Amino acid sequence: MDTVTGKNKNKKLSHAEISQNRANLEGLSELKRMPVVVLLNSIRSAYNVGSVFRTSDGAMIEKLYLCGYTTSPENKDVLKTALGSDKSIPWEYVKEAEGVISSYKDRGYKIVALELTDTSVPYYKISSDDFPFLLIIGNEITGVSQNLLDMCDFSIEIPQFGIKQSLNVAVAYGIALFEFRKNWDLKN
Amino acid sequence: MDTVTGKNKNKKLSHAEISQNRANLEGLSELKRMPVVVLLNSIRSAYNVGSVFRTSDGAMIEKLYLCGYTTSPENKDVLKTALGSDKSIPWEYVKEAEGVISSYKDRGYKIVALELTDTSVPYYKISSDDFPFLLIIGNEITGVSQNLLDMCDFSIEIPQFGIKQSLNVAVAYGIALFEFRKNWDLKN
Repeated sequence: MDTVTGKNKNKKLSHAEISQNRANLEGLSELKRMPVVVLLNSIRSAYNVGSVFRTSDGAMIEKLYLCGYTTSPENKDVLKTALGSDKSIPWEYVKEAEGVISSYKDRGYKIVALELTDTSVPYYKISSDDFPFLLIIGNEITGVSQNLLDMCDFSIEIPQFGIKQSLNVAVAYGIALFEFRKNWDLKN
Repeated sequence: MDTVTGKNKNKKLSHAEISQNRANLEGLSELKRMPVVVLLNSIRSAYNVGSVFRTSDGAMIEKLYLCGYTTSPENKDVLKTALGSDKSIPWEYVKEAEGVISSYKDRGYKIVALELTDTSVPYYKISSDDFPFLLIIGNEITGVSQNLLDMCDFSIEIPQFGIKQSLNVAVAYGIALFEFRKNWDLKN
């Protein structure tokens, strides 16, 4: 990238300037949502659920399902972290993830888990042919359970290069989701 | 992506199986680090600092600088979130960010801010020609300050599509960093 030069190089935008280019709640119906539905299964941390809402707003997904013992967006710590994105992302609590997965499978969505498995592929291999799909995110410690993995078409992983075995779940979700959005926008 | 079929499709890996393919502290010196140095300027949340450490380990950066009033990795909440990655990522506390930036500029590193500015470009435009570089991450609320932006070669942003103005700083960092790592690996 060339170095930016001139008087106004890298001039920070104000909140007002940024807001001009953002949609608001009234304009929600006009936003182009990426055809991705996300299912959180038993995410315990309110901070992680709130962060997932905020990231989902950034990439504008279709819908978020909260299953198992996932902390509710009515929890005040979720609301604090979500910063209002629980209003822009349609969400629903359904205890049993299996029913949600089956209904989307019937509607022609591919079913994808963000989980390291013996057949998982790098997250950036998802192509425009894979939309629409439902993405399953599992618990912070135990990941996506095997019974849900058995319902998946494939699983994706984020290749890692350090000494740890995993990323924070909300960070991993962001990495994967924005890769999908980038690839989807390039094709649409 | 083709649906995975067969008896062992999407079989979850155990922690032991994952560990087999990960480096450990003894093997650290053999890991191939991406030529990226990161500078956190006045990141207040211990959770965010810990998460940045964990993500930095995942992508294996060269070094992490903590400047301004960034919460120290000696804080127990940072350690809890970092999960040991403060051992694999060299880090240093330096109060004044300007000196660190100048020294890397002198060594031929490009200086890049993750910040929305009037000249910021999408994060995925960084190419293999831009390595090595120093990436500046700013405060959760106020972002990268203008005096540091004035020292940057260019700034990068993460295009967003919802009603909010920003992502969580640790999530935004993850999205950008893993894009860099992917592009760097493809060229090396």
